[in-house]
Amino acid sequence: MNCSDAHAVLAANALLSADLRGIDSHGIARLSGYVRLWEVKRVNATPAIKIVHETPSTAVLDGDQGLGLVIAQEAMKIAIAKAEKVGTGWVSVQNSNHFGIAGYHAMLALEHNMIGVAMTNASPLVAPTFSIDKMLGTNPIAVAAPAGSQPPFVADLATTTAANGKLEILQRKNEETPAGWVQDQSGHSTTDAHILKKGGALLPLGSDREHGSHKGYALGAMVDLFSALLSGANYAPWVPPFPAYVPMPAQQPGKGIGHFIGAIRIDAFRPADEFKKDMDHWIEGFRNARPMEGHYQVLVPGDPERIAEQERLQDGISLHEEVVKDLHELGARFDLPFE
Amino acid sequence: MNCSDAHAVLAANALLSADLRGIDSHGIARLSGYVRLWEVKRVNATPAIKIVHETPSTAVLDGDQGLGLVIAQEAMKIAIAKAEKVGTGWVSVQNSNHFGIAGYHAMLALEHNMIGVAMTNASPLVAPTFSIDKMLGTNPIAVAAPAGSQPPFVADLATTTAANGKLEILQRKNEETPAGWVQDQSGHSTTDAHILKKGGALLPLGSDREHGSHKGYALGAMVDLFSALLSGANYAPWVPPFPAYVPMPAQQPGKGIGHFIGAIRIDAFRPADEFKKDMDHWIEGFRNARPMEGHYQVLVPGDPERIAEQERLQDGISLHEEVVKDLHELGARFDLPFE
Repeated sequence: MNCSDAHAVLAANALLSADLRGIDSHGIARLSGYVRLWEVKRVNATPAIKIVHETPSTAVLDGDQGLGLVIAQEAMKIAIAKAEKVGTGWVSVQNSNHFGIAGYHAMLALEHNMIGVAMTNASPLVAPTFSIDKMLGTNPIAVAAPAGSQPPFVADLATTTAANGKLEILQRKNEETPAGWVQDQSGHSTTDAHILKKGGALLPLGSDREHGSHKGYALGAMVDLFSALLSGANYAPWVPPFPAYVPMPAQQPGKGIGHFIGAIRIDAFRPADEFKKDMDHWIEGFRNARPMEGHYQVLVPGDPERIAEQERLQDGISLHEEVVKDLHELGARFDLPFE
Repeated sequence: MNCSDAHAVLAANALLSADLRGIDSHGIARLSGYVRLWEVKRVNATPAIKIVHETPSTAVLDGDQGLGLVIAQEAMKIAIAKAEKVGTGWVSVQNSNHFGIAGYHAMLALEHNMIGVAMTNASPLVAPTFSIDKMLGTNPIAVAAPAGSQPPFVADLATTTAANGKLEILQRKNEETPAGWVQDQSGHSTTDAHILKKGGALLPLGSDREHGSHKGYALGAMVDLFSALLSGANYAPWVPPFPAYVPMPAQQPGKGIGHFIGAIRIDAFRPADEFKKDMDHWIEGFRNARPMEGHYQVLVPGDPERIAEQERLQDGISLHEEVVKDLHELGARFDLPFE
């Protein structure tokens, strides 16, 4: 695609992190999707990423239609530099594309003794409470905070009951979803994993009004405000779709998709070692909470992904045969050896 | 209680806002609770609120055990002043008490053309996913953002499936809860609204693992980190209880309860009028989404509370007879006329 070496390394690191952490839907499996977006000129492989406005603690970054995988990491660099100087840094990004897993970008702040924050909007798959129309993406929120002797706290969550990747797994197996994940084109509850292609929608975290779907909807909306309304990116149902074959929305109120990246220097609040000691105590408290019958331990956000990473660093990463086929085709096409 | 006039006005405004906005559980109904906390010396009516550490965009505020209703507003003043100078302001608060509704504090930023953020931790009523023990409070998140011709966006949500106030209403009526709101002392699902007194717990937003309760748990945990780990307040199961008759936890890793208050100056990102025009377009998009059968319109976060406020400004606020009795008793005791 003619990416610079530096950008190729950044993008590969972000994708590899998803595969290592067990989030297969956001790793190398997406590579052919990014290439297809580049082919239809929705991804610019050689972007001139630039700050269009800034203050000591804020910036708006124009991603020049590049890979979100790369742009979000540039945004985090800026956020960290600002946090070094004035305590926190907040970068809202316009004119970007899909950025991979939010957690990876948030975790970049950890080695600087900072809390990392990463959010992104995404193409509309989610119906707000009482709505038939799909108005929001799965709009994830990630927060990573360092601990002392314990591993870091890493929360990374779609603001929907189930992420789209979970739905895709059921589609491949031709299985039904649990109740409360999706609705049909009239807004009725369904368990059809293929319902999105038939006018259905994913549901906000909470599933229905009685179980707090208005809260999941509000959280997804917040992500949209921070990522797109603050940056001048597209928002709500006008966010560009990820699949290259889906036409762009006719209306384009902004530029590309939007992210929101933050870095919080811990010693801008209190000494980092005191914070980390309390984080260890906090984490140990949760690990020592009494688990329900049938569960070995209460988990802390980030545990499942860290355990997957340990296993996969040791045993390697299994790829779905479709993904291997995709990679062979890409290799042949770009004259790159792939065995 | 010997509050200064200035503090009494701040506290009254915060309580009145809850009653006007239809959140009866957090308004004047709480007054006798605050007084009881003062009687057992857990609330200091004449606090010396002070900044203990700061950078251009951050501060830690020591509330000196005062009313959270007052301290959170002082924190927002500091956050706004910092945002004026460097784009954003973030104040983590230690040594505070219950601060009323989060939304009120977030909304204080609106008239400054800023987005307001308010979070607080709270005494442990919530069991994380797979846990029997109650480890977190209902830890709300509020975000308020101004629009142009449309009313502001105001999201204010407990990170649980149902707020404790909703449970209290069912307790008074002796009704059962919907499935997915609470669990019993063994972690089994129950619909007993009185279960918290029997070792049960509220559930994180999502209700169970299959419906994303690990996400609600992670969100509640984030609020705890920002509010207490950054400030040096008590956290997790060690947050002091609201009812004055409940003994303090034996272990006290920090001081009082914690809040996290933020102000984001919109024109630190882009011109406020452009942002507001896009907010109007965003809001109109959601109001024009097709509603499900049986619903007149898709709501925008803040709509129900704004509608309640319009009605109550016109018709007055109905008080529960228990609350009126409470106020009569308080009036008699403090020699204040109440008719």
